Amino acid sequence: MITLIYAHPYPNRSRANRVLLDAVRDVSGLAVRSLYDLYPGFEIDVEAEQAALGSAHTLVWQHPMYWYSVPGLLKHWFDKVLARGWAYGAGGTALQGKRCLWVTTTGGDEQAFQATGMHAHPLSAFVPPVEQTARFCGMSWLEPLVVHAAHKISRVELSEHARDYRQRIEQLSSATGGEGG
Amino acid sequence: MITLIYAHPYPNRSRANRVLLDAVRDVSGLAVRSLYDLYPGFEIDVEAEQAALGSAHTLVWQHPMYWYSVPGLLKHWFDKVLARGWAYGAGGTALQGKRCLWVTTTGGDEQAFQATGMHAHPLSAFVPPVEQTARFCGMSWLEPLVVHAAHKISRVELSEHARDYRQRIEQLSSATGGEGG
Repeated sequence: MITLIYAHPYPNRSRANRVLLDAVRDVSGLAVRSLYDLYPGFEIDVEAEQAALGSAHTLVWQHPMYWYSVPGLLKHWFDKVLARGWAYGAGGTALQGKRCLWVTTTGGDEQAFQATGMHAHPLSAFVPPVEQTARFCGMSWLEPLVVHAAHKISRVELSEHARDYRQRIEQLSSATGGEGG
Repeated sequence: MITLIYAHPYPNRSRANRVLLDAVRDVSGLAVRSLYDLYPGFEIDVEAEQAALGSAHTLVWQHPMYWYSVPGLLKHWFDKVLARGWAYGAGGTALQGKRCLWVTTTGGDEQAFQATGMHAHPLSAFVPPVEQTARFCGMSWLEPLVVHAAHKISRVELSEHARDYRQRIEQLSSATGGEGG
């Protein structure tokens, strides 16, 4: 089982994330949880979320990048669902050994993510908080899938990313664990 | 005017953040907005928040670190309040030239924030998303105030941090701008 946590604040305005999600949603053994649809008032059902992770060997976090990070509801999900005694700390082994794939889109292109670009840093400068969240819960961190310039790239390029994404999800789905990160 | 955005998910369980906040809350010209008290259901009043920032020359973000970042409600506040056309993008100059002070507490001590420590990175690895959020809005970034091991440090040490904090806020309060970052 793969649990895909999808966090798009405006699902109807999405271009790239929708194409990416549509490319994988019918892979067998994959379950999508669209947080902004499930919890429009941010009232996360922690038990339901934990149950959905418990049955998975792989966790996907997919979202557009908002302010160099995850959108607010996914951050709130981290705060509530990845609880001490469940995800970390004494007795907190629920996610130990699972794999975590981060799939994110950015508005800026690769030029923007340079020391001299409008975001003043390479994208890698914004990875540690998300990666370390997964690692602190004992998950193995897979190579992230990042789509830059999500509003501007051509349909062809977007389709290529979608195809890559599907391929990775299919591989993860057929593996039962142990790919490592 | 200084606007202090306070984001503690469990204000009643706070130790360090409460001491820090109490040390500055009566500085003249400072207004505190406690997000988790104002918006327990995450229903941020964007206009009220923007108005509170508009009248300030300095903005303070104070919170305990949650998952190497700001708590969910403060992230949601970034997403909603720092809107395109207001905080950035065409016509988005509302925060230009204001100063931004980040005040945060961590559970881990300085040892934990090392390559070999339990958080696998120095704290500086987790700064770019927050710093670049301020800078992208044209704010000048001040040297952050970080209190490590917030649950464990002695009262004396905590009082010293509180005194430093008050001193910095008083200086910022008497300056009318231009300290730079």
